[in-house]
Amino acid sequence: MSAYARPVEVLIDELGRLPGIGPKSAQRIAFHLLKVDTVDARRLADAIVAMKENVTFCERCYNVAEGANCAICTDPARDQSILCVVEEPKDIAALEKTGVFKGVYHVLLGVMNPLEGIGPENLKIRELALRVAAEDITEVILCTNPNLEGEMTAAFIASKVLAPFEVKVSRLASGLPVGGDLEYADELTLGRALEGRHGFS
Amino acid sequence: MSAYARPVEVLIDELGRLPGIGPKSAQRIAFHLLKVDTVDARRLADAIVAMKENVTFCERCYNVAEGANCAICTDPARDQSILCVVEEPKDIAALEKTGVFKGVYHVLLGVMNPLEGIGPENLKIRELALRVAAEDITEVILCTNPNLEGEMTAAFIASKVLAPFEVKVSRLASGLPVGGDLEYADELTLGRALEGRHGFS
Repeated sequence: MSAYARPVEVLIDELGRLPGIGPKSAQRIAFHLLKVDTVDARRLADAIVAMKENVTFCERCYNVAEGANCAICTDPARDQSILCVVEEPKDIAALEKTGVFKGVYHVLLGVMNPLEGIGPENLKIRELALRVAAEDITEVILCTNPNLEGEMTAAFIASKVLAPFEVKVSRLASGLPVGGDLEYADELTLGRALEGRHGFS
Repeated sequence: MSAYARPVEVLIDELGRLPGIGPKSAQRIAFHLLKVDTVDARRLADAIVAMKENVTFCERCYNVAEGANCAICTDPARDQSILCVVEEPKDIAALEKTGVFKGVYHVLLGVMNPLEGIGPENLKIRELALRVAAEDITEVILCTNPNLEGEMTAAFIASKVLAPFEVKVSRLASGLPVGGDLEYADELTLGRALEGRHGFS
């Protein structure tokens, strides 16, 4: 005999497949859902189904979209000639919060990772090349994460994918975080901050 | 304009209401569900609905149950005269794993917590008194957690609820965990272990 009723076991199992949810968390969430009103639990189930039915990836930039194209691609106020390449749609949210970037995006839906067998063919890199070839793009900013996988992916795109095109290719600046402390910066970041030093304005 | 499509925002909001899920985790889970196959996401939604439809609390002991009574209450092999009082159904799973207890359970569905306004009237304590009055129970083991709230609840039940009845009332032993180390035990636990010392066998 299992410890719980079968439907509870099934739910704990399904919750345990979610990223960052271990067996103990899955159990806690399942019992929470068992205790709350049926309408509240149902609202979560409905939200999952509604999202899967109504949200897809933008056909042009692979951001999340409710129709064929995302809200940014269909915004006439955005500069269509500057392209920001990011790993995931959530990176767009982070960049949009800055209010600094007025161009459009291209989401790779992942990052190159040889250890996990993720190569350029698993990402939207071919689609990026097709876009740069077909659209009137003057600058591509590579905004992958400043870690090993992100740097490798950015280097691959710059040297192998965008080299044949006449576009300006740039990378996000590395350096000290605003409000940070020299003493606690790691040597790589501090080294990058030194290399990237600029005139005092 | 919000950063994501509306159904994604709704799902992130709903996920954020779950215990132990912060805004970042909710976002990560939502994007995970966006990426996986629709059947996989649907399976999670269905598991939530199925559990809410098929699982309730046992009418007798408030454990999770698929029918009116739970699997333990309906098991003829269990000793119906020994009652183990626990806070939550998940505590039953922990006790069952030991294989030591052959009696039945009573779940309080919570613990007394004056700071959060949870008093005896919010728990299944009245139901416990009715059970002890109506059923042929000889011993009640108070298995609430060995923390402030659990001890308070156990003390309340022992002194105010079970005192009028002729039942043996016991509490789980406190002491050093098996495989533990004297040096690292906190003074309260070590004090309890000393108080609870028993003859060398």
